[in-house]
Amino acid sequence: MIKNAVRIKMKEEVLRSEKKIAAANRRRLRRAAVAGLNIIGSPGAGKTSLIEAVAGRIGKGVGLGVIEGDLASDLDLRRLNAIGVRALQINTGRGCHLSPAMVASALEEMPLEEIDLLLIENVGNLVCPANFDLGEDAKVAVCSVPEGDDKPAKYPLLFLEAAVAVLNKTDLIAACGFSRRRFYRELKSVNPELPVIEVSCRSGKGAVSWARWLRNRVKEKRI
Amino acid sequence: MIKNAVRIKMKEEVLRSEKKIAAANRRRLRRAAVAGLNIIGSPGAGKTSLIEAVAGRIGKGVGLGVIEGDLASDLDLRRLNAIGVRALQINTGRGCHLSPAMVASALEEMPLEEIDLLLIENVGNLVCPANFDLGEDAKVAVCSVPEGDDKPAKYPLLFLEAAVAVLNKTDLIAACGFSRRRFYRELKSVNPELPVIEVSCRSGKGAVSWARWLRNRVKEKRI
Repeated sequence: MIKNAVRIKMKEEVLRSEKKIAAANRRRLRRAAVAGLNIIGSPGAGKTSLIEAVAGRIGKGVGLGVIEGDLASDLDLRRLNAIGVRALQINTGRGCHLSPAMVASALEEMPLEEIDLLLIENVGNLVCPANFDLGEDAKVAVCSVPEGDDKPAKYPLLFLEAAVAVLNKTDLIAACGFSRRRFYRELKSVNPELPVIEVSCRSGKGAVSWARWLRNRVKEKRI
Repeated sequence: MIKNAVRIKMKEEVLRSEKKIAAANRRRLRRAAVAGLNIIGSPGAGKTSLIEAVAGRIGKGVGLGVIEGDLASDLDLRRLNAIGVRALQINTGRGCHLSPAMVASALEEMPLEEIDLLLIENVGNLVCPANFDLGEDAKVAVCSVPEGDDKPAKYPLLFLEAAVAVLNKTDLIAACGFSRRRFYRELKSVNPELPVIEVSCRSGKGAVSWARWLRNRVKEKRI
């Protein structure tokens, strides 16, 4: 019989060790003046598409690196490699989110001196990744129109933790009967300060604003 | 310092206790001749819509009960109550999936003698809920066209565990550039036996097949 006190102590120990690794990742990125963003959203919300959209728009002066988190497959890695983006794949197996240790291993493999912007695409999951600090500068909440206008109310945690929300697939607003009014009203009740960037990766609409937001994160890092 | 052996022992203990509760749930449902289905899919894949679609089509002879799992809010519960479906809401807070114990508490509150079909809508998450047996008869994998045709390859576990997959939002196939061919090819490579029901909750297309599949589960229970 294992006592509750032991259980709690163990949990705390694991969390402490994860926090330490996340802090080390953060120091490492800071030393290399890399802006690191943790991109979180449901499966199929368009996280990889948003990275593809940035690749051509971020500007030549910004070195882009990507860490791809997926349960299985290297499909996303291949999409990014096909357009010349420097990316590393992490397969988590049954793991529902990236861990600080996984990111630390990936950082070992990356030429950080050539990178200004590191996009960490987390496992497709609107719930678990929001609970874990990887050492990033900020979290990006990605949601998409077909998921429905009720997501902020039903999955509030990510929208509380994020520095920005990207609402993707705006080309489907009419086809999905998505209510912008309801989405913004519910988002405001969860986190009134959260900026939102509307994007359609399909049409390219809004991609410039998204790239600009990222470029500003890189600039802040250089100051 | 807590040793690995203790950590593993503890994990096993928790899992054993969850398995016991799941088994008790299963016995309870069997005694009451209730067909219990664990409905799993990403946020916004259309799990609640698929339940709404069934409500009007399942037939008067089949008593329907629903357990709604969400991090927060009772939005889905209210949708179901509005059309007269008997439902109970579980809010998991930060919990990324329903647990057997949560379902056991809900079963306490349900008039099982009046129910033939129990639909358990899990937290919107394509990853974690697939790892947990709640005591259901079978898992239903819900995915939707806008999530993309690559989901079986990237999130294989659920498609391995499920007894059926529902592909929802087929009205958006053209708008999303969804390749049926790729979807079925990848699904086949993960689980060649898995039947798929295509549905558009928006147009109602396929909803009859989905209701028929569920009715057959109820019939099997009565034999």
